[in-house]
Amino acid sequence: MKQLRIGMIGYKFMGKAHSNAYRSLPMFFPKALKPEMSVICGRNAEDLDKARDQFGWAESVTDWKDLISREDIDLIDINAPSNAHKEIALAAVKAGKHIFCEKPLALNLADSREMLQAAEEAGVAHMVGFNYRFSPAVRLAKKLVESGRLGKIYHFRACFLQDWILDPEFPLVWRLQKEIAGSGSHGDLGAHLIDLAHFLVGDMQEVIGMSETFIKERPLATEMTGLSAKGDTNAPKGAVTVDDATLFLARFVNGAIGSFEATRFAAGHRSTNSFEINGSLGSVKFDFERMNELEVYLTSDAEDVQGFRRVLATDPAHEYAEAWWPPGHTIGFEHTFIHEMLELSSAIEEGRQPVPNFHDGVKCQAVLEAVERSIDERRWVELSEM
Amino acid sequence: MKQLRIGMIGYKFMGKAHSNAYRSLPMFFPKALKPEMSVICGRNAEDLDKARDQFGWAESVTDWKDLISREDIDLIDINAPSNAHKEIALAAVKAGKHIFCEKPLALNLADSREMLQAAEEAGVAHMVGFNYRFSPAVRLAKKLVESGRLGKIYHFRACFLQDWILDPEFPLVWRLQKEIAGSGSHGDLGAHLIDLAHFLVGDMQEVIGMSETFIKERPLATEMTGLSAKGDTNAPKGAVTVDDATLFLARFVNGAIGSFEATRFAAGHRSTNSFEINGSLGSVKFDFERMNELEVYLTSDAEDVQGFRRVLATDPAHEYAEAWWPPGHTIGFEHTFIHEMLELSSAIEEGRQPVPNFHDGVKCQAVLEAVERSIDERRWVELSEM
Amino acid sequence: MKQLRIGMIGYKFMGKAHSNAYRSLPMFFPKALKPEMSVICGRNAEDLDKARDQFGWAESVTDWKDLISREDIDLIDINAPSNAHKEIALAAVKAGKHIFCEKPLALNLADSREMLQAAEEAGVAHMVGFNYRFSPAVRLAKKLVESGRLGKIYHFRACFLQDWILDPEFPLVWRLQKEIAGSGSHGDLGAHLIDLAHFLVGDMQEVIGMSETFIKERPLATEMTGLSAKGDTNAPKGAVTVDDATLFLARFVNGAIGSFEATRFAAGHRSTNSFEINGSLGSVKFDFERMNELEVYLTSDAEDVQGFRRVLATDPAHEYAEAWWPPGHTIGFEHTFIHEMLELSSAIEEGRQPVPNFHDGVKCQAVLEAVERSIDERRWVELSEM
Amino acid sequence: MKQLRIGMIGYKFMGKAHSNAYRSLPMFFPKALKPEMSVICGRNAEDLDKARDQFGWAESVTDWKDLISREDIDLIDINAPSNAHKEIALAAVKAGKHIFCEKPLALNLADSREMLQAAEEAGVAHMVGFNYRFSPAVRLAKKLVESGRLGKIYHFRACFLQDWILDPEFPLVWRLQKEIAGSGSHGDLGAHLIDLAHFLVGDMQEVIGMSETFIKERPLATEMTGLSAKGDTNAPKGAVTVDDATLFLARFVNGAIGSFEATRFAAGHRSTNSFEINGSLGSVKFDFERMNELEVYLTSDAEDVQGFRRVLATDPAHEYAEAWWPPGHTIGFEHTFIHEMLELSSAIEEGRQPVPNFHDGVKCQAVLEAVERSIDERRWVELSEM
Repeated sequence: MKQLRIGMIGYKFMGKAHSNAYRSLPMFFPKALKPEMSVICGRNAEDLDKARDQFGWAESVTDWKDLISREDIDLIDINAPSNAHKEIALAAVKAGKHIFCEKPLALNLADSREMLQAAEEAGVAHMVGFNYRFSPAVRLAKKLVESGRLGKIYHFRACFLQDWILDPEFPLVWRLQKEIAGSGSHGDLGAHLIDLAHFLVGDMQEVIGMSETFIKERPLATEMTGLSAKGDTNAPKGAVTVDDATLFLARFVNGAIGSFEATRFAAGHRSTNSFEINGSLGSVKFDFERMNELEVYLTSDAEDVQGFRRVLATDPAHEYAEAWWPPGHTIGFEHTFIHEMLELSSAIEEGRQPVPNFHDGVKCQAVLEAVERSIDERRWVELSEM
Repeated sequence: MKQLRIGMIGYKFMGKAHSNAYRSLPMFFPKALKPEMSVICGRNAEDLDKARDQFGWAESVTDWKDLISREDIDLIDINAPSNAHKEIALAAVKAGKHIFCEKPLALNLADSREMLQAAEEAGVAHMVGFNYRFSPAVRLAKKLVESGRLGKIYHFRACFLQDWILDPEFPLVWRLQKEIAGSGSHGDLGAHLIDLAHFLVGDMQEVIGMSETFIKERPLATEMTGLSAKGDTNAPKGAVTVDDATLFLARFVNGAIGSFEATRFAAGHRSTNSFEINGSLGSVKFDFERMNELEVYLTSDAEDVQGFRRVLATDPAHEYAEAWWPPGHTIGFEHTFIHEMLELSSAIEEGRQPVPNFHDGVKCQAVLEAVERSIDERRWVELSEM
Repeated sequence: MKQLRIGMIGYKFMGKAHSNAYRSLPMFFPKALKPEMSVICGRNAEDLDKARDQFGWAESVTDWKDLISREDIDLIDINAPSNAHKEIALAAVKAGKHIFCEKPLALNLADSREMLQAAEEAGVAHMVGFNYRFSPAVRLAKKLVESGRLGKIYHFRACFLQDWILDPEFPLVWRLQKEIAGSGSHGDLGAHLIDLAHFLVGDMQEVIGMSETFIKERPLATEMTGLSAKGDTNAPKGAVTVDDATLFLARFVNGAIGSFEATRFAAGHRSTNSFEINGSLGSVKFDFERMNELEVYLTSDAEDVQGFRRVLATDPAHEYAEAWWPPGHTIGFEHTFIHEMLELSSAIEEGRQPVPNFHDGVKCQAVLEAVERSIDERRWVELSEM
Repeated sequence: MKQLRIGMIGYKFMGKAHSNAYRSLPMFFPKALKPEMSVICGRNAEDLDKARDQFGWAESVTDWKDLISREDIDLIDINAPSNAHKEIALAAVKAGKHIFCEKPLALNLADSREMLQAAEEAGVAHMVGFNYRFSPAVRLAKKLVESGRLGKIYHFRACFLQDWILDPEFPLVWRLQKEIAGSGSHGDLGAHLIDLAHFLVGDMQEVIGMSETFIKERPLATEMTGLSAKGDTNAPKGAVTVDDATLFLARFVNGAIGSFEATRFAAGHRSTNSFEINGSLGSVKFDFERMNELEVYLTSDAEDVQGFRRVLATDPAHEYAEAWWPPGHTIGFEHTFIHEMLELSSAIEEGRQPVPNFHDGVKCQAVLEAVERSIDERRWVELSEM
């Protein structure tokens, strides 16, 4: 493989993050196969062309089918709303394109399995956008777990707390509509926690959850982008059809136990994506709002100086750090995508599947859906049921 | 009521904390009815007399029945192991004594209800030792909730994390034996979280939990006190019959949802008793390892300076603070007991029930047991079932 | 020595802290020589008697000369305002009494030297009240420095930040009057930092400072106690004759360099007594508002987990901790005094000088005065000049 | 002005940061005048061409005089070592080029004044690279000061702590040689603190400092880039001719007082660029290792919830934030340069001087040099002397 010509569908929050990642990869990881920012695709031609110019794409098209049928595209990047993922992905792999798909892979488990199977049969590379895996501090956590330095894992506890819809007058954006978004905080935020749990601890055996929609009706949105939107207090109201918060407990196959919470109603938390792992030899804590840091506790420390140490994951000893700035000079949210695209590009160059891929997407979807089933049926659900 | 003559049963960790509280109350709260440290009671005469002299009790007796039969005792303080609470309490209230009982009230809900009923019928004052309510920072949280400054409560999440039995060679102390302790982390640590939830959020409607005993056998203990103990690696082993960790989810009557975790296997956490409350107008966070602090977020702050503020609850505006030292001069764990004894003493003087009392103890026990049932039967349990 | 009968002069903020320490010592350190709380002394008979009863002293006298002349007193504790220290101390040592004197030892270096000489000639035990040395976390810092685990010391930086007189209408209490207090933030707060520097790093060679009185006039006080006071905005005003803030730089004899800042005008800092030490092998950080914690960095940590660890100095490995509560159960401000009295009592029992003693008080005074001279003369002042 | 064609001299640490900023500006601030990345210049042709391709420059030249003589260049960006700044800048402005120069402007005050004068006479735009001004959290601090929300400023205290040369075997890189770097921690790190003080508090009136070179000889470097380097322990040694640490005290014209510390010997501090401001109505704290956060204290908060709040400067209410990601999604070190280039580009488009410009560079140099003089002459130095 000597080139990687990208066709990207979607140009909002994630489209911007992906564009920036493709654009930045060659500068900071010059040895990686360089993504060509060939074609951007979206439905509103005017906005799309603005995005094309701003983000640095060569061309734009408004019909994704046109994009997929092009010979000069190697990879389709899907970051359109969740309800569009499946149809596009199936068409893309049928056309022999590699595929990068934002999470959640699909609106349900069956769809995501169909996507995985199609991609596997087509023999293309497939990746799913669990970007938080690519924080250097999370990589350090992974390294500590995998090397056994934390010992046997007992506990995983994770929260993804936001507050952007706390105001009951915040309008009914697409992320609050089940038919487009699939689910609310569960699929949007919880999905990231589930993937981190899979990455760091392993597979789950059974789950039980609960969820709540605190504000059941909201004014219709007049304008929306990213996580912000404008509404009109006097606008007609529509029903919120997704969860505002979902919590669940889990038992992992390896004997660890876990708790998960995703909510958009945690006042003061703009985006607290945090987890803690406790093992027999140590613990780690992570909070995305301080994403350059990992707190690490090791039982092997001398008995008079035991404590959680705040490791700034910007040293040469930390993955990705040398590509950036000297120790102590931090990076931000967008860098997780650059590292993600490094994995995508490297995997394609090396002829292997990127990680995380559709297998991970399916696995995440299985847990999401098992939790939903456990809520509906008010009982523990085994992952083997799914 | 002009005097409050105490007879205390137990002289280990809690006995020391209570003694110090009785001893300190008149100095720091001189207007309160002064507790007389009359008689201390325990089974080992030699250790008991040492404790009597060290803690400042006037007399000692080795049989609690002798203590209860004395005319010159107004209140019985029970901090013996949990399996002794019920019998002593029933006898004490029968003898017309006021009663202060450490948590958990009893080994099960039925027993604790029996204790409550007996105390009510006897017309005595009864209090239960949920000391964490008496941290000034927790009082501040209560004030913010109760005054409506946090708005409608959506979330309560609480963890009580310790690591003192992380070492598999740590011996089998009484706290790890069901017949003495009732339960493990659940009743020891979780009980405090449940009481804080009752205090700060209100009653629960339903719960579902999970628990785990990570280390199933341990060497028998040769010596133990407080939370420390000595064993011998070559000692015969016995079965751990309580939970090492218990987690549960809850739905409150007022619509809030909560998650609870109690564990003794969280490496690096010596005693992280922490909770967070999220409401429609703000949030608070508390961690007992930094017990003088409450983190407070208010949505009413100006939009450019919104953030969790670290309030040091040592100002005159904070409950109890003026009895102590100037602002910024902190207090510690033991002070929660002094404030607790202030409530005990004040209530008795004023002829009202102290808070928290056996009602709260029963309510806590009901949740503990509902969680246990939910674990046994793998289903949600309504509190109304209990 | 079989008894230690205390006569204490002063009954306000420090008198309360000392009383509590004497009272608590036997309970928590039962092997120590027990202080007898014999006589408390103060000028206002009514307030004094209230303090006597509240704090637990056997007797009270209003004339300190009467106290000193008594045969049945072994030790005089001086915590009256600073301008009274010298006369009382000289009389006390002349009467053969051991002496515990609050800092600052005296209003100036000459006086403090006279006090030291008199005490030495009288052959009595003498101690000075630098209580912050007795925080377990500070002891840990000392241990790390002294054992060489931090290597060669390069930097010491310390701030004692308060804000209790930030309001320009806060009245003119005695601590703001030079003739009574000697100096302002410098002698009150800076003195503690200087002593910690002596304790942790060693002697200074030269200093240069600056100071400022931001609010030059204040309403006269109508009532004052501890650090609080009441005034009347319409009251006549008087001149503030001490510094509101004093900063200085220092070179230590061992080659380390230091910066010091003491201020009462740091909004938001109720009592931030903090220092950091950087050595060739590691660093420590301390903040009294989180007095149970020491942050420790060691260059010997594995390269991927280097970071400041938050050590909670409540483990058995930490000095004093076992006398208190289980790990993770914190102590507060008042405990520093209990540990201080343990040193006082132990030293007297063992027939040695307590540490810190008047030598340390003189050394601190020398630095305080060298800084003042450096401010007056706008030049570096060598300690050897003093 | 319709275009801004850049010629950049230097391609190491700062060259990479600047390139990334030019490259990113149009994507995140699409309305800004777009910088054209025309020509990059450096002495080593091979490395230079690699940088050209990696960073995205159109052309490269090895002689900066060739660059300056080109007609098709509008702005010269100088990030070569400090000793080269003056000659290049003078030539550039003589050729009528706008100029962006990294700090420190020159090796001494006289040179920097000459540069300012030349630039002013040439009528070109001139900017100096104090990038930390461009952190959103620092902008928020500025806004709070300027709007009076912190009241009258009393204190400024700032530290820039690093530890990259703590190891005595770390080689003698150019930053440790006076003839190339001008000074050590003082000009490298202290300069940033001085500029922040100017930005946030105002001009200084007088200063006094001290400095130290802890390790006086080091092995010669065999290879160096950014802040890292390789050496050989057996290599011949050379003298370190700059300061390892410099501290100073300052009095500001507006009556505030300040302390400054810059060191490369603070173990555990990779890049702690921190300051605190205390005013009559509030305080702010900043630490670059957590650059997205500003801690804010306001005396106007209700008395029971006063405390430093941790403001995450990623909300729409914060400068620059809307160009990036949703609230709670952080940015990093490199973003300060993008914002810097936004100011550069905007100022040139609007025909005004960018801020900070050579006036600020000169003012910083004056303080740097006043501090050096105060060290040499061991006395307070007035800025008016300079």
